[in-house]
Amino acid sequence: MSTALEQIGANRSFGGWHKRFRHASATLGCDMVFAVYLPPQAEHGPVPVLYWLSGLTCSDENFMQKAGAHRIAAELGVAIVAPDTSPRGADVPGDPDGAWDFGHGAGFYVNATAAPYDRHYRMYDYVVSELPALVEAHLPVTAVRGVAGHSMGGHGALICALKNPGRYRSVSAFAPISHPVDCPWGQKAFTGYLGADPAQWKAWDAVELIATAGERLPILVDQGEADGFLAEQLKPEALRAACAAAGHPLTLRLQPGYDHSYYFIASFIEDHLRHHAAALLR
Amino acid sequence: MSTALEQIGANRSFGGWHKRFRHASATLGCDMVFAVYLPPQAEHGPVPVLYWLSGLTCSDENFMQKAGAHRIAAELGVAIVAPDTSPRGADVPGDPDGAWDFGHGAGFYVNATAAPYDRHYRMYDYVVSELPALVEAHLPVTAVRGVAGHSMGGHGALICALKNPGRYRSVSAFAPISHPVDCPWGQKAFTGYLGADPAQWKAWDAVELIATAGERLPILVDQGEADGFLAEQLKPEALRAACAAAGHPLTLRLQPGYDHSYYFIASFIEDHLRHHAAALLR
Repeated sequence: MSTALEQIGANRSFGGWHKRFRHASATLGCDMVFAVYLPPQAEHGPVPVLYWLSGLTCSDENFMQKAGAHRIAAELGVAIVAPDTSPRGADVPGDPDGAWDFGHGAGFYVNATAAPYDRHYRMYDYVVSELPALVEAHLPVTAVRGVAGHSMGGHGALICALKNPGRYRSVSAFAPISHPVDCPWGQKAFTGYLGADPAQWKAWDAVELIATAGERLPILVDQGEADGFLAEQLKPEALRAACAAAGHPLTLRLQPGYDHSYYFIASFIEDHLRHHAAALLR
Repeated sequence: MSTALEQIGANRSFGGWHKRFRHASATLGCDMVFAVYLPPQAEHGPVPVLYWLSGLTCSDENFMQKAGAHRIAAELGVAIVAPDTSPRGADVPGDPDGAWDFGHGAGFYVNATAAPYDRHYRMYDYVVSELPALVEAHLPVTAVRGVAGHSMGGHGALICALKNPGRYRSVSAFAPISHPVDCPWGQKAFTGYLGADPAQWKAWDAVELIATAGERLPILVDQGEADGFLAEQLKPEALRAACAAAGHPLTLRLQPGYDHSYYFIASFIEDHLRHHAAALLR
């Protein structure tokens, strides 16, 4: 594996730095770009990191540009790392029909087992293992980690935390795809990446994982009540029921009038960053 | 003039609303889209407005998505209106070479006098007169106005305030094109829109207007010291000298390490909104 990080951008922001890096990913078999926000405190020593997993169609840029998170990260002294949402490149197969909800921009944070996607689509291993190792080796951050995300990335954040007891100190999600085995986006993605047998999908579904989770890390979820994807794709009530049944601590906030956009994320990101900082900085 | 406003989008944001409208502009002879942020206070009565003028290549969307301004506007009870940066459409002539620094996305907030641009490119009249009249007639805002902008829009904000004593209560700019008659962007735009005689350009140049300004409205300017356009295009020192000579109050803050991006704007927008609110809410 190449560990070379090529810096491709740097912007001063709230006294810290927003930087973008390109690197060759051994896990994904392609070049990847990710972004990091380093708060001012990182100039004096390594700081904990929140990994942010974005939703369908996003790259590393959406959260950094639109969430308004730098201000709070700078105050708290927490770094934020935002990976891309899939492997990319001419050699990486995408959706055969060119759709936006599968393939490029839609890796769904699983390790694909079905051809032709099994070669490159290993976003789970990338965000859980390769990317943190790279970041912790080359940037002024510690191995104290939180994970959060939006929509497809909310699903990603939940499964990364639920499948890896002890690896993250905190988890939260905005409008997560809570129960992908039971919604059109998830069923399309899992069929393509994991094959047609739904029994193979359950290991990548937050609602299914809650019962047997190895630790009871408190989950914070915000969900807009005017989100057009709420009933068909997101199913927060399934997450609520699973957490209740398992005794898993969940704070699920339904926000009247809010939709699925980054305006919704920006409106509540401060609460999420403070939720993470309370665990990361303790 | 059609006064019909067609709402084309609405997102709840920080307890208020981000909305986008399309309307037929009589001034510009084309359909235009603008965005507004209405803070929660606007549900109880009209609120003052900050007009935000964006830079080259921008639309109504960039500031709303990237500046992180809604949070502060919601706290202060100030609306923000963001117009597009030029007339648009198949009937509107653009740059003959397809460049990004003239024509579509680059109206420069002047009233063009040179063909073929004189028919549509009247962004000055649009942002000073038509748009405020429309907004004040149809949305819960008052005629208490501030004006701010970035780069080309910083130039726009400065000339709108300097040319209209009493029309705005406050003005500020990020990295404005302070002296367009003396920089490549300004010279290209003014030649195209106003003709080849530089004597005709001075009425649209902040540095030239300062000496004879009809009121001494305090100007707040932030400028990144790592801005790649600083020396050639922006020339804040010319603005400083003009203000000093005229006794015009100017707070010019040079921000070490900051560039020309929205990360720079986001880092200091709170100070600007508080500068405006102090005048708008008094």
